[in-house]
Amino acid sequence: MVVVTAAAAGGSTKVGNVTGRLRRGQTKRAWRRCVILRSMRKESARNAFYAQSGGVSAVINASACGVIETALRSRRIGKVLAGRDGIVGALTEDLIDVGRESRATIRGLKYTPAGAFGSARFKLKGIDENRAEYERLIEVFRAHNIGYFFYNGGNDSMDTALKVSQLGASLGFPITCVGVPKTVDNDLPHTDCCPGFGSVAKYIAVSTREAALDVASMARTSTRVFVLEVMGRHAGWIAAAGGLAGKSPAEAPHIILFPEVPFEQQRFLERVRATVETHGYCVIVASEGVAYADGKFLADAGTRDAFGHTQLGGVAPMLANMVREAHGYKYHWAVADYLQRAARHIGSKVDVEQAYAVGRAAVELALKGVNAVMPIIVRRAQRPYRWSIGHVPLAEVANKEKKVPREYIREDGFGITAPCRRYLEPLIAGEAYPPYRDGLPDYVRIKGVSVRRKLKDEFKL
Amino acid sequence: MVVVTAAAAGGSTKVGNVTGRLRRGQTKRAWRRCVILRSMRKESARNAFYAQSGGVSAVINASACGVIETALRSRRIGKVLAGRDGIVGALTEDLIDVGRESRATIRGLKYTPAGAFGSARFKLKGIDENRAEYERLIEVFRAHNIGYFFYNGGNDSMDTALKVSQLGASLGFPITCVGVPKTVDNDLPHTDCCPGFGSVAKYIAVSTREAALDVASMARTSTRVFVLEVMGRHAGWIAAAGGLAGKSPAEAPHIILFPEVPFEQQRFLERVRATVETHGYCVIVASEGVAYADGKFLADAGTRDAFGHTQLGGVAPMLANMVREAHGYKYHWAVADYLQRAARHIGSKVDVEQAYAVGRAAVELALKGVNAVMPIIVRRAQRPYRWSIGHVPLAEVANKEKKVPREYIREDGFGITAPCRRYLEPLIAGEAYPPYRDGLPDYVRIKGVSVRRKLKDEFKL
Repeated sequence: MVVVTAAAAGGSTKVGNVTGRLRRGQTKRAWRRCVILRSMRKESARNAFYAQSGGVSAVINASACGVIETALRSRRIGKVLAGRDGIVGALTEDLIDVGRESRATIRGLKYTPAGAFGSARFKLKGIDENRAEYERLIEVFRAHNIGYFFYNGGNDSMDTALKVSQLGASLGFPITCVGVPKTVDNDLPHTDCCPGFGSVAKYIAVSTREAALDVASMARTSTRVFVLEVMGRHAGWIAAAGGLAGKSPAEAPHIILFPEVPFEQQRFLERVRATVETHGYCVIVASEGVAYADGKFLADAGTRDAFGHTQLGGVAPMLANMVREAHGYKYHWAVADYLQRAARHIGSKVDVEQAYAVGRAAVELALKGVNAVMPIIVRRAQRPYRWSIGHVPLAEVANKEKKVPREYIREDGFGITAPCRRYLEPLIAGEAYPPYRDGLPDYVRIKGVSVRRKLKDEFKL
Repeated sequence: MVVVTAAAAGGSTKVGNVTGRLRRGQTKRAWRRCVILRSMRKESARNAFYAQSGGVSAVINASACGVIETALRSRRIGKVLAGRDGIVGALTEDLIDVGRESRATIRGLKYTPAGAFGSARFKLKGIDENRAEYERLIEVFRAHNIGYFFYNGGNDSMDTALKVSQLGASLGFPITCVGVPKTVDNDLPHTDCCPGFGSVAKYIAVSTREAALDVASMARTSTRVFVLEVMGRHAGWIAAAGGLAGKSPAEAPHIILFPEVPFEQQRFLERVRATVETHGYCVIVASEGVAYADGKFLADAGTRDAFGHTQLGGVAPMLANMVREAHGYKYHWAVADYLQRAARHIGSKVDVEQAYAVGRAAVELALKGVNAVMPIIVRRAQRPYRWSIGHVPLAEVANKEKKVPREYIREDGFGITAPCRRYLEPLIAGEAYPPYRDGLPDYVRIKGVSVRRKLKDEFKL
């Protein structure tokens, strides 16, 4: 039953928890009736659960915005609940009532980086291996009348989503489950690209161009070699994006090190020397996942400091030191780490739009009753770039990795090819600046009002 | 003598090397006469020399733009010549004819980071110690009729500028010498702030806020401690700017490590643990110059790897490892290095305007015959922030360093105070986005046409 309170003064009016403004010509009574009817329909509808999973990105909240705005508009979805800290929130019955957030906050998610609801690195085991976790999920979902499950993540997360989608068949709890793609690594198969990648690609391309100008201007008397370490442990998409900083092999970055290309120290050092001798300086973009032919990561090469601690640095300091030992060049190095994947201030407009679109599409698919799928980006045309949304079964993306294909890597292994450039360029197109206040991006924070718990027993993770 | 060529078709016309458009109602003949007269006046005027010095910044070219546009407009300055790679260009008679650059390129310097003319880390010794260098400078200046010397740099560079300003008195070559302040470190005395600092401060504040959101969203199951290493070896201004990312001690960054505050390992580790226990995670901004009480840098603490190489990493990996050893928290770290000082894409509007203004003021001072000074930024009002340009004698800034005063550092040594925040906030105000093409900032490059050499002998540096 819905409790109707007296309308508040001054044109704003209230029914239960819902406060609103009258439309032109609408009486308070008509507005209240409208809210009550909607609420009754909503109460009979099943609720939606949304969770963020795995490493976050500059635009995962834009996908959240797409999911939430679309779900809140639907009459067939009741409440929207979010897992606090991803699937962990579902298991521990730690749910956020998204309806308690203001519309401005929800809209602000579109330009706010990282995971506003909290994300988690937590992989569900197989249903047979850990039945207790799935039974717990069902218990929580049943208690909160959850019929839609939207899971925003990468390869591992799509595996979890797939397992949840099978709850109906295996444990008798029907739920419509749609994955929402997200990964800065761009390594999900079937989709043309992954939301999150375009923005990190833009950040790395811009940063490489800027740092290269710095090195170029000082090389005569100072630093000659600069190494920028970027993310992407198994797939070199982010490293490849560094290649957009220059237009020809003569321009920085002069060397890109991909995880897809086995690292050969002598060839690398020779190329560095040749580059410095020709251009006066050398800019290197190195994936954190650069590895020797035997698969051993450079960063895990077993070097230890005087106290026997494992080598502290990453790939960048290791490569820089290698160059200094061999050639004596003065060097600098940078490790962008979280700065790159949180850099919403330089987000790609295309990426933001695609992130929102896959969120919206996920809800639309679920409302059509399509289960166990993930929306994908389909490239329709190259120039001008056009894209649309399709979808694939979760089973076809779960745990699969799309690496940079050989035809995207220059024959010498140190750069990108023209087809790679054509693929990447549209993904960093356009700027989508956040609003600023006092010189800083005015990112939103959710109130994060908890849904009252309905279950008595605690669940130990 | 000026060679007059036939006017080109289509409204654009040409005299010698000068191409221009007719003003409304102006005949081609009148325009040509105007150019010839101007050129004759220019030929009798002495030329200006401009050079960039030391580590570059996101806005040093904006100062170049201020110098060049003002000098080119002046009737009392002949040509504008720039040193290729700073003072090295003067010594080796490697001069760039700035007049050969298009106006669009000159204008574009205002939004292009790093040193477009090349900078150098090259400090002139005292006149008595190395008379040959000064005699060479005079030889080059005399050969190219240089009467104005504009030197764009930091503390060390102002020392060089001071020495050059004394050439008249000590070696009988009169030259008007004005320094143009530039340093991301913000450590020049007398000026309220240094052009270059506002933009790096904005970059660090923005990046800290963004990375902190990332860490916060994953802390429950993943990274709990994040360390961002920033520049500023002797002065902690850049580290202090990280403090703008949050509004209260409860918000990230939770710990700032200044070079001005001796590092105490136990206190630091205790604060990290207390922060993680209270907030779930801990964000640390550390100056590269963090040092123990005995003055020894943490980064130079003598740790060596298995091969006896000096510790490769910087302060960030060292601190992160220290935390892991003590508390076992999962950590991440980033070293922004050149990315921070080249990040024109997130340049501060106030900083860009001040950089341009000190460049323009330098020329105006020189034209008034004021020698051996440096324009400074004077803070006129706090809120709304107002500033103007003053100047001080070079002797008062050369080789002096302005550190972060104790009243700007919180009593516990781990954060900034309200007065520090009030000082910093206006300096990062406003965005000054560069134009973009194909998703990347469309930075300009100079043609860099060399001035024909007039001297026969080479000069060995």
